[in-house]
Amino acid sequence: MARIWVFNGPNLNLLGLREPEHYGSHTLAEINQEILRIANEADVKTEFRQTNHEGVLIDWIQALTPADFLILNPGAWTHTSYAIRDAISAVKVPALEVHLSNIHAREAFRTNSVIAPVCIGQISGLGAESYELAMRYAVAYQGKRGRQ
Amino acid sequence: MARIWVFNGPNLNLLGLREPEHYGSHTLAEINQEILRIANEADVKTEFRQTNHEGVLIDWIQALTPADFLILNPGAWTHTSYAIRDAISAVKVPALEVHLSNIHAREAFRTNSVIAPVCIGQISGLGAESYELAMRYAVAYQGKRGRQ
Amino acid sequence: MARIWVFNGPNLNLLGLREPEHYGSHTLAEINQEILRIANEADVKTEFRQTNHEGVLIDWIQALTPADFLILNPGAWTHTSYAIRDAISAVKVPALEVHLSNIHAREAFRTNSVIAPVCIGQISGLGAESYELAMRYAVAYQGKRGRQ
Amino acid sequence: MARIWVFNGPNLNLLGLREPEHYGSHTLAEINQEILRIANEADVKTEFRQTNHEGVLIDWIQALTPADFLILNPGAWTHTSYAIRDAISAVKVPALEVHLSNIHAREAFRTNSVIAPVCIGQISGLGAESYELAMRYAVAYQGKRGRQ
Amino acid sequence: MARIWVFNGPNLNLLGLREPEHYGSHTLAEINQEILRIANEADVKTEFRQTNHEGVLIDWIQALTPADFLILNPGAWTHTSYAIRDAISAVKVPALEVHLSNIHAREAFRTNSVIAPVCIGQISGLGAESYELAMRYAVAYQGKRGRQ
Amino acid sequence: MARIWVFNGPNLNLLGLREPEHYGSHTLAEINQEILRIANEADVKTEFRQTNHEGVLIDWIQALTPADFLILNPGAWTHTSYAIRDAISAVKVPALEVHLSNIHAREAFRTNSVIAPVCIGQISGLGAESYELAMRYAVAYQGKRGRQ
Amino acid sequence: MARIWVFNGPNLNLLGLREPEHYGSHTLAEINQEILRIANEADVKTEFRQTNHEGVLIDWIQALTPADFLILNPGAWTHTSYAIRDAISAVKVPALEVHLSNIHAREAFRTNSVIAPVCIGQISGLGAESYELAMRYAVAYQGKRGRQ
Amino acid sequence: MARIWVFNGPNLNLLGLREPEHYGSHTLAEINQEILRIANEADVKTEFRQTNHEGVLIDWIQALTPADFLILNPGAWTHTSYAIRDAISAVKVPALEVHLSNIHAREAFRTNSVIAPVCIGQISGLGAESYELAMRYAVAYQGKRGRQ
Amino acid sequence: MARIWVFNGPNLNLLGLREPEHYGSHTLAEINQEILRIANEADVKTEFRQTNHEGVLIDWIQALTPADFLILNPGAWTHTSYAIRDAISAVKVPALEVHLSNIHAREAFRTNSVIAPVCIGQISGLGAESYELAMRYAVAYQGKRGRQ
Amino acid sequence: MARIWVFNGPNLNLLGLREPEHYGSHTLAEINQEILRIANEADVKTEFRQTNHEGVLIDWIQALTPADFLILNPGAWTHTSYAIRDAISAVKVPALEVHLSNIHAREAFRTNSVIAPVCIGQISGLGAESYELAMRYAVAYQGKRGRQ
Amino acid sequence: MARIWVFNGPNLNLLGLREPEHYGSHTLAEINQEILRIANEADVKTEFRQTNHEGVLIDWIQALTPADFLILNPGAWTHTSYAIRDAISAVKVPALEVHLSNIHAREAFRTNSVIAPVCIGQISGLGAESYELAMRYAVAYQGKRGRQ
Amino acid sequence: MARIWVFNGPNLNLLGLREPEHYGSHTLAEINQEILRIANEADVKTEFRQTNHEGVLIDWIQALTPADFLILNPGAWTHTSYAIRDAISAVKVPALEVHLSNIHAREAFRTNSVIAPVCIGQISGLGAESYELAMRYAVAYQGKRGRQ
Repeated sequence: MARIWVFNGPNLNLLGLREPEHYGSHTLAEINQEILRIANEADVKTEFRQTNHEGVLIDWIQALTPADFLILNPGAWTHTSYAIRDAISAVKVPALEVHLSNIHAREAFRTNSVIAPVCIGQISGLGAESYELAMRYAVAYQGKRGRQ
Repeated sequence: MARIWVFNGPNLNLLGLREPEHYGSHTLAEINQEILRIANEADVKTEFRQTNHEGVLIDWIQALTPADFLILNPGAWTHTSYAIRDAISAVKVPALEVHLSNIHAREAFRTNSVIAPVCIGQISGLGAESYELAMRYAVAYQGKRGRQ
Repeated sequence: MARIWVFNGPNLNLLGLREPEHYGSHTLAEINQEILRIANEADVKTEFRQTNHEGVLIDWIQALTPADFLILNPGAWTHTSYAIRDAISAVKVPALEVHLSNIHAREAFRTNSVIAPVCIGQISGLGAESYELAMRYAVAYQGKRGRQ
Repeated sequence: MARIWVFNGPNLNLLGLREPEHYGSHTLAEINQEILRIANEADVKTEFRQTNHEGVLIDWIQALTPADFLILNPGAWTHTSYAIRDAISAVKVPALEVHLSNIHAREAFRTNSVIAPVCIGQISGLGAESYELAMRYAVAYQGKRGRQ
Repeated sequence: MARIWVFNGPNLNLLGLREPEHYGSHTLAEINQEILRIANEADVKTEFRQTNHEGVLIDWIQALTPADFLILNPGAWTHTSYAIRDAISAVKVPALEVHLSNIHAREAFRTNSVIAPVCIGQISGLGAESYELAMRYAVAYQGKRGRQ
Repeated sequence: MARIWVFNGPNLNLLGLREPEHYGSHTLAEINQEILRIANEADVKTEFRQTNHEGVLIDWIQALTPADFLILNPGAWTHTSYAIRDAISAVKVPALEVHLSNIHAREAFRTNSVIAPVCIGQISGLGAESYELAMRYAVAYQGKRGRQ
Repeated sequence: MARIWVFNGPNLNLLGLREPEHYGSHTLAEINQEILRIANEADVKTEFRQTNHEGVLIDWIQALTPADFLILNPGAWTHTSYAIRDAISAVKVPALEVHLSNIHAREAFRTNSVIAPVCIGQISGLGAESYELAMRYAVAYQGKRGRQ
Repeated sequence: MARIWVFNGPNLNLLGLREPEHYGSHTLAEINQEILRIANEADVKTEFRQTNHEGVLIDWIQALTPADFLILNPGAWTHTSYAIRDAISAVKVPALEVHLSNIHAREAFRTNSVIAPVCIGQISGLGAESYELAMRYAVAYQGKRGRQ
Repeated sequence: MARIWVFNGPNLNLLGLREPEHYGSHTLAEINQEILRIANEADVKTEFRQTNHEGVLIDWIQALTPADFLILNPGAWTHTSYAIRDAISAVKVPALEVHLSNIHAREAFRTNSVIAPVCIGQISGLGAESYELAMRYAVAYQGKRGRQ
Repeated sequence: MARIWVFNGPNLNLLGLREPEHYGSHTLAEINQEILRIANEADVKTEFRQTNHEGVLIDWIQALTPADFLILNPGAWTHTSYAIRDAISAVKVPALEVHLSNIHAREAFRTNSVIAPVCIGQISGLGAESYELAMRYAVAYQGKRGRQ
Repeated sequence: MARIWVFNGPNLNLLGLREPEHYGSHTLAEINQEILRIANEADVKTEFRQTNHEGVLIDWIQALTPADFLILNPGAWTHTSYAIRDAISAVKVPALEVHLSNIHAREAFRTNSVIAPVCIGQISGLGAESYELAMRYAVAYQGKRGRQ
Repeated sequence: MARIWVFNGPNLNLLGLREPEHYGSHTLAEINQEILRIANEADVKTEFRQTNHEGVLIDWIQALTPADFLILNPGAWTHTSYAIRDAISAVKVPALEVHLSNIHAREAFRTNSVIAPVCIGQISGLGAESYELAMRYAVAYQGKRGRQ
């Protein structure tokens, strides 16, 4: 049974509680609920984590290897953390970068992702649905693998 | 009945016929087939177009207004065409930018999108599934609108 | 009888129909009407064209030589089209660049014109009157020439 | 009776006396004569001033409030004076920036205007006629206001 | 019998008719005449095309596959058209970039070619002979291939 | 009773113990002593914290909401931590940025603060008094609020 | 008896009269009143000056030597005037830079101060209180000096 | 008896387990083993630590003072952590920066070290031997000190 | 009898009174004394002026035409004043730029002169002798002219 | 009888001996053989030289004047040697720049030629044939001259 | 018997004779003495050379092939000589770059090495010991090779 | 008896023979003649050298120590040779940089001197007189030294 982990970086625990004009009105718990529903339907195992500590996220990524896929919203670390990039690059778990807001349409410093070059792809700007589509993709990705 | 248009920019007609290492082995026709299936299930009207002429794409975008949503892969114009950006901005049809390859993980000139700031969001790197997830989002977007 | 051509680049056919906060509420037809009135008073021949195709605009410029003056709003090509610049430079018809909005007061990418170096001058930010003043200048320019 | 002020920055008192290849052969007095004629026809009050002292220009702008419109050629301060920009921004008199030569077709440092973002528009490159067209626009601007 | 196509981008139809100080006094027809002579001597098939429409050039490149070699003068698109680059890259026909003037000795914006990275080489600055040498190279290239 | 929190970033626990030429000879404890005296006089509640862990600081900021004001010396994170910036922006507690040394008079990398855009203001270069003045401002700020 | 001078650069005479959203609703006279009150309490001599003329400000700074401290709001010269910087550097009177608005949170060109490297510190963003805190610091600074 | 500490930053715990093409096939434990051997021979005390948490590394550096020398591989923090730089600068323990791979021969972002300016030197590209040579240098450094 | 004017920009009146480490211990009066001696020997008329007001310097330059040569130390305006540059360019009096300190060996912002492109040459770094050599050159320059 | 010199810069003596993937398998001697054949056919005198010493190349260029044409492969000096550029510019012998590999398709630092602005043209990327085509051009160039 | 060459670039012959604050007090002869001792112990052949002529260094590198390893201090050419880089790249002898001072802690222009990308690694900042450690590494490198 | 050496870099042997519009019509021999005359009058020993070989110039500078002053025109190496800079810096002979043309008024790449930071000063743009004034300064410099 495939395992698809969902990790969130700094401040994403505040989702839905603050700044709905940027991030929508769903809480992270609600989003996770919805992702879980999709995971259950697809019969994959999932797990949700959020941290404000870069080191904790690196530890989690390093310990990923039992997992088959990582959905990652690196939050503000997107633009600066080469350490997270190196961790993903090292563990070689396929990763998909997600963002709630369209980072390419905001301040200049948000348009560059130092993490993107080690990910499969990026979904940004679709609010809670950025995660849901990512889960759908991760599920399909398992299927393709299975068939190989 | 909602109308969701899918427009493709230059060279995307060659999809699946060339450079599979970058763009996968599906032809544009096959991708469209799959998108159509999703559209049919969701009972939305869709239409597929591809052009190598920037002017033609601008004309199409300008004439979009009967449509409810645009899924757009601007191809190499992503990085230079302010004219396409202005067209989207003018017609105010909600647009979602898609890319087959992860443009943020390729040559430096491909990481910047001048079109992104006028789109809702961006999905890149997921191959044919970039389009399929886009269609799913577009469908869900109609639903939300309908409920308002 | 002097001939003063007025060419418009991409999306300018939408004028007055969209984004009045940037471009005013006059349609291109209304603007042309007003320019025509000035042309008639001054007894000069004029002609109006708009295109979303860069190649078409280049063809028109190349075929300009029977004309005595070009009033050109290159739209979003202002910032990228060296091909249009080369065309103007080649035909050597005196050209005046016009913009409805003040391009120097908007996004950074709009403040640079690659076409300006081959034009006589630039009028920007005065809405429909950018064109009217340009026509007045073009008329006066003919007069000066005639006196030489 | 509307008041339209015309202010000129450094070295513009030398107009017509020097470097006619850049600035034409009209003196500032002759240009002002012509602007005055237009003002008289339109029945607006006008006043001409020139200074080589940035502080003097700022004082004048601050004292503008009895005026309805400012036509400003900031000369070489165009590229560096945030103080003049702040003054215009503070007094909120509508201002139109004019230049005799096409600043966008000269040395790189002349293509950027730090003052443009607080002006209505910019006319450059038309020689003495840059001013005359500016006066015509200013007159028309009063008319529009009056009708509101 | 080898096929060597010669494509020209925007404004090259004006060759010899304008700006001889930059591009020499030969018309494109005369240049083609000379290239044809070389082709005939070498017993290769050739074909000449010119367009001011980027989309048309992309279509032509995509349809190249029956050809064995492309001699391309991309004109002003040299510096901006990633779409043409992608087309060449996709069809994998060997391409040689030519320029009449030495683009490395002109304005800064002309020294960079976004198309060069997908070409075999570049000949610039030799006027009409840039094409002739290119044809000689293309012929020799066929020979080498044949011997392999 | 108003609560004014004082948070310090990395290495500020070494204050007074090291590099007095940059940061003065007061220890953080001594500075806090002085701030406390001002707080007591003004009858506001205060609390002092220092951490070398970015994640800990983010956690503290997120938990701030019972507080009325934040005095923050982000130390070396000033120049890189978008995560701290996002945290402040999210909780919307008014924050005042302080620095012991004049960051605008040191190495180039220290002159830019990525946190400043979400703060009310910045006091830098006044040594221990940067904090004391910040506390005085925070106290006055409460007063103004109270009067509203 | 210590002398603490307060100098203001261009447009600061308009304070409270214009753009209260950026600079608050206090006039410069009211701010000076408040600073004077603090000066009187502390028994120091103070003097207030404002000018829109860079040369006048330089003259004043050069003539400062009878003074013990300078509080300076250089206004828009903050970003460009190396001449003011050199004047402060030459007279070696301790100077404290103040700004009403948080210059680090506004347009890019406002975030850099060429004057900061020759000042003790900088207080920005606290409105009229930027000045009051500066005066408190200046007073305390005298005290420290006296005790040495 | 001299104490020489060896600290490793993020992801270095994965050494030898992953990406041997970049970092060689030795595990961190094996490398430490070898360093220990050299330390023992030289009769110096050593200690090995690795962390993925920037704050933990800063804490360790701050607590270094009983140590005589620091060998530090900052991993991906090399390029961004001014906080680690400040910590080293504050404790004034002599530090030597080491890297397994030649950071000057990899991606552009890896060629710059913000930590180098506060270190004695840098050894990069020699794999496990980068550490061993560093330990040899540290031992010799103690000797030189002892003789002074 | 030739007239050679010597103009000095901001803060140069402080020469010899302050910062001798940068500018030497001669006062401007002493330097002028020495220049005068050279001028008298060479039987040329000279005149010395210094101002802290950019506008005053521009006025002086505009009124230069009775003079045959300008020796100019623009002080800190060297790096920013396009207005002074334009004034020199307009009056066409031959000008020689001098600096006491070697501006090419100091802070980065001092290495660029916006005034140099309109001057004959530049002498920098030789202290008071920068002026004396300039006067010798100016005298010789008159001689050459006279002989023509 | 025309003289056409062929000069090669650093490391080109290694041609064919090393790195055939970049530079082909022909030795410089073999290439020269082929160029000589063309020269003989065309009845022009030629001479081949290679050096790793920039000064030697400058000496050779300065002594060129008896020659009628220079074919130059400046090797790695292409990107840095203003001294070679000045030498070519001074002797005014027509020069043609050649490169074996397509420098516009390699590392960023190789795409810029500081020598190109003083050459007639550039041929790059065609391996040994870059030289042969250059010789053909040089021969033809003599012919044109002769006819003038 | 392995051969390990040690080459030094410009000005390194002055070592120990000048600027000991940057480069230590050892002469190059003394350093070589020490390296020789290590080489002798390890039973490898070594040879020392220094030159101020870039061309000479390139000649030496090209003639290296009988050698097994190169220890190179390129001095000031580190930052500019693509010709030396190409020579190393061509001969494919393993090279180790050494610097006496920590180039990453000095002027900005010294932090970049254009030669590093073709070297195994880099040791900088350890004075004479930079060379000694390099020799130790070179010796060990031979050992590893021998065992393969 | 003081020794003042005059060294010239690449292509300066061509002086007066070529490009008089940039460098005047005097040959280097004639210039040296004039400098010698000044030296003889002042009773100082002088010596003239020119080279196109950077290494030779470095050797000469290193051997300078018996000399008291260096007048140096580094020619095109001005902009790139850190090796010459390091040589001057090492030998600590006072050096004065001269240029015939005004390097600050020519192409952008000529405005920066990497050698200036280690020189006393710079004289540029005065043709042959740049050298003569330099010799006068060097003579006076000896005098000052003698008096100390």
